[in-house]
Amino acid sequence: AAFAAGKPTTIAPADIAIAEQLREKALRDDTAWEFTEGLTTEVGPRLAAGPNDLKAREWVTARFKALGFDKVWSEPVTFPKWVRRGEHAEVLAPFPQPLSLLALGHSPGTPAGGISAEVVGFDSFDALKAADPAAVRGKIVYVGARMHAHQDGHDYGIGSQVRVDGPPLATQKGAAAFLLRSAGTDNDRLPHTGVTRFDPGQPAIPAAALSSPDADQIERMLKRGQPVRVKLVLDCGFEGEYTGANVIAELRGSKTPDQHFVMGGHLDSWDPGTGAIDDAAGIGISVGAARLIAQLPKRPARSIRVVAFANEEAGLFGGKAMAEKYRKSIGNTVLGSESDAGADRIWKITATVKPEARDAIGQIAAVLKPLGIEYDAQAPGRGGSDLSALHAVGMAGLSLHQDATRYFAWHHTANDTLDKIDPEQLRQNVAAYAVVAYLAAQANGDFGSAPGAFAKDQGED
Amino acid sequence: AAFAAGKPTTIAPADIAIAEQLREKALRDDTAWEFTEGLTTEVGPRLAAGPNDLKAREWVTARFKALGFDKVWSEPVTFPKWVRRGEHAEVLAPFPQPLSLLALGHSPGTPAGGISAEVVGFDSFDALKAADPAAVRGKIVYVGARMHAHQDGHDYGIGSQVRVDGPPLATQKGAAAFLLRSAGTDNDRLPHTGVTRFDPGQPAIPAAALSSPDADQIERMLKRGQPVRVKLVLDCGFEGEYTGANVIAELRGSKTPDQHFVMGGHLDSWDPGTGAIDDAAGIGISVGAARLIAQLPKRPARSIRVVAFANEEAGLFGGKAMAEKYRKSIGNTVLGSESDAGADRIWKITATVKPEARDAIGQIAAVLKPLGIEYDAQAPGRGGSDLSALHAVGMAGLSLHQDATRYFAWHHTANDTLDKIDPEQLRQNVAAYAVVAYLAAQANGDFGSAPGAFAKDQGED
Ligand SMILES: [Zn+2]
Ligand SMILES: [Zn+2]
Ligand SMILES: [Zn+2]
Ligand SMILES: [Zn+2]
Repeated sequence: AAFAAGKPTTIAPADIAIAEQLREKALRDDTAWEFTEGLTTEVGPRLAAGPNDLKAREWVTARFKALGFDKVWSEPVTFPKWVRRGEHAEVLAPFPQPLSLLALGHSPGTPAGGISAEVVGFDSFDALKAADPAAVRGKIVYVGARMHAHQDGHDYGIGSQVRVDGPPLATQKGAAAFLLRSAGTDNDRLPHTGVTRFDPGQPAIPAAALSSPDADQIERMLKRGQPVRVKLVLDCGFEGEYTGANVIAELRGSKTPDQHFVMGGHLDSWDPGTGAIDDAAGIGISVGAARLIAQLPKRPARSIRVVAFANEEAGLFGGKAMAEKYRKSIGNTVLGSESDAGADRIWKITATVKPEARDAIGQIAAVLKPLGIEYDAQAPGRGGSDLSALHAVGMAGLSLHQDATRYFAWHHTANDTLDKIDPEQLRQNVAAYAVVAYLAAQANGDFGSAPGAFAKDQGED
Repeated sequence: AAFAAGKPTTIAPADIAIAEQLREKALRDDTAWEFTEGLTTEVGPRLAAGPNDLKAREWVTARFKALGFDKVWSEPVTFPKWVRRGEHAEVLAPFPQPLSLLALGHSPGTPAGGISAEVVGFDSFDALKAADPAAVRGKIVYVGARMHAHQDGHDYGIGSQVRVDGPPLATQKGAAAFLLRSAGTDNDRLPHTGVTRFDPGQPAIPAAALSSPDADQIERMLKRGQPVRVKLVLDCGFEGEYTGANVIAELRGSKTPDQHFVMGGHLDSWDPGTGAIDDAAGIGISVGAARLIAQLPKRPARSIRVVAFANEEAGLFGGKAMAEKYRKSIGNTVLGSESDAGADRIWKITATVKPEARDAIGQIAAVLKPLGIEYDAQAPGRGGSDLSALHAVGMAGLSLHQDATRYFAWHHTANDTLDKIDPEQLRQNVAAYAVVAYLAAQANGDFGSAPGAFAKDQGED
């Protein structure tokens, strides 16, 4: 960093004025919408390592170039390839009927004829944790934790714990397979997939998510007290390794181009939907913001990078590869903010920066205030999922929190499609990102990025 | 009818008082919920002629008996058997990706390898009607009419016309297959099935409904101007005939048992869901109402019948069979009111009765008023879908109109499950049906049922 510790980071009034203009212009700009519409329509589903992985990278590379970035490149990312070929399930007894479900990412398949076994039900992760392995052995474990919708989406903590940690726990206790009530807030007959904590070569059992109405159905059957038998057929599993890439676009800084602000989203999506809210919109918002800055008469002092990350869904592989690559030079990534919670309006800004940059964050927040965004100066802001690994090696982070009330109804389901994005709220997102990107790139002083700078501040926002 | 024409039908104050008590009791009674929960959980999907047809009849027969009706019997109904074995589709060009769709009832299957052809799009039934057959021949016709949610559900007229009349029209014009934007008001990735107008042995092309987001996707592709090619694989079709049955339960009248009031719903459902709103609830509401009347110290003067109709979905076969059987004695069916629009609150009552019974309907409506139900004395009230054939041969009808704002989001989709029913609104339905059933069974005078009585008043409410 170019400034001595202790000297406060500041933003010049002229830059504030330009940021305000960017904000207003963003509210009338549809670049983000066009990007999101294009990626979800012309590429569609983008399972990491799947048939559209390369196609998506080619699409986004071409679009970055067409939008006039100064430099566009890829950085390889290698990860285990997981394939979904299909799945189905049915209740065998006492009330035979089909079930709607989706295999979890990294789940092994069942034997070809499926697994037929009795279901043992739990209402929470902790109840499964407390269970005697004898009650679970050879059975299909079902965990029926419920999530409700909140602006800050905090119930995802409940659902994702069941999905991520439930299957390995059930494996350990000797279960035959694992089912959960989808980690979602809806009551649609569309299961929520998502990754679970299985690595290639480790012990693992077939694991899948039931849609909420199917989970209700299983619970009603269990309540009747007769044994509930389910047949589960999952055709999925690991198939070696795959090398994809993070695709990066840069607006080259006019004064200190080696320093950059980074934003973006992940290019991969779960396969049942077209990954509109998760996370075409995240890249679209960043592209929309960068484009407005590119149209200014002059590039800002620092560079601005937009990253379309590889394989966030199955384990943050793109972000981790980037952290590995930029670990030593992390001081050059002055600040990062990624969008990965849909495109409903941003309602809060938080940041994890050095104390001397706190006032600059306050200056940025003041420009965001007319967008209805509150500044919470106490809460952490680590920059988002794909940037968590960069934050862990020392990148200062800023988080723009989208309203998650609707997000977890559609997240990781076939319902993640373009129609779920409200163009007006999307523009509000672009306005916020344009302000943050421009002011971070123009700030006098840094935000504290340095190797190991935030070693004590890990975890999720 | 026992009363001379010209003499007004009336309801005694003592009967009004009992009806008011029934109304209040119904608001605390869960018989309808328990019936609906049981049928949708223990039987589940109930495609007419499908694997659960007989099972559903056995279930409802046993339940009718357990609930203490005086008589329970079945009347056979024969209809063409249509089978769904599966379906899938994908865009081949310009942007390959899978599509979510469901074959329409009575659609033929495609050849085993599917049909691959270019899509030609229309935005309404009328646009297809106006199309030159040369523009359609050998292509997959797509019709993308949109429905919006309304309390009275009137946009279903738009969607059902496309679904019912579109495929035969496209067949006539030489199309290879037919796709529509689902006849629904939602934007969920769940297609709406439903019957189309194909009879066994007639010319027909494969016909299916796309979910709303898939329809959007096809429209975005068509808008880009490049040829859009789709591959469609439907495995479905007619398989001879099937004989099911209407299942009927009766509370035997204490004075004129040969006369009866009839209510009910249809026992069959489309197969992707469990037929909760369409139409387990319809039977459940009738059962709940009848049960409260059965608990009175004395049976009402006339009999009360609850009918679980066979195969409404593919062509009103149960209602037609009943009309054929009771055609000559239709005067004994003094009034009929069926529930087939879900279980959200009833907001309006209408009736098609003889002029001399209009005041009695007004008396009934007054008892319903505290439930928030308005009386529209001008509009027809033909008693509902399953009763339309009975009305056509002379049955007086009364319609209790459910709020359809939510109904057409879930109708005929996998989303038609128990969780879509609000127990409180369901009880309001039961209260209204209990009032109507009791007062119709106690009225001094009839409502005008007689062979041919309403010959000039056909059609939908
Ligand atoms: Zn994401
Ligand atoms: Zn995700
Ligand atoms: Zn119906
Ligand atoms: Zn129906």
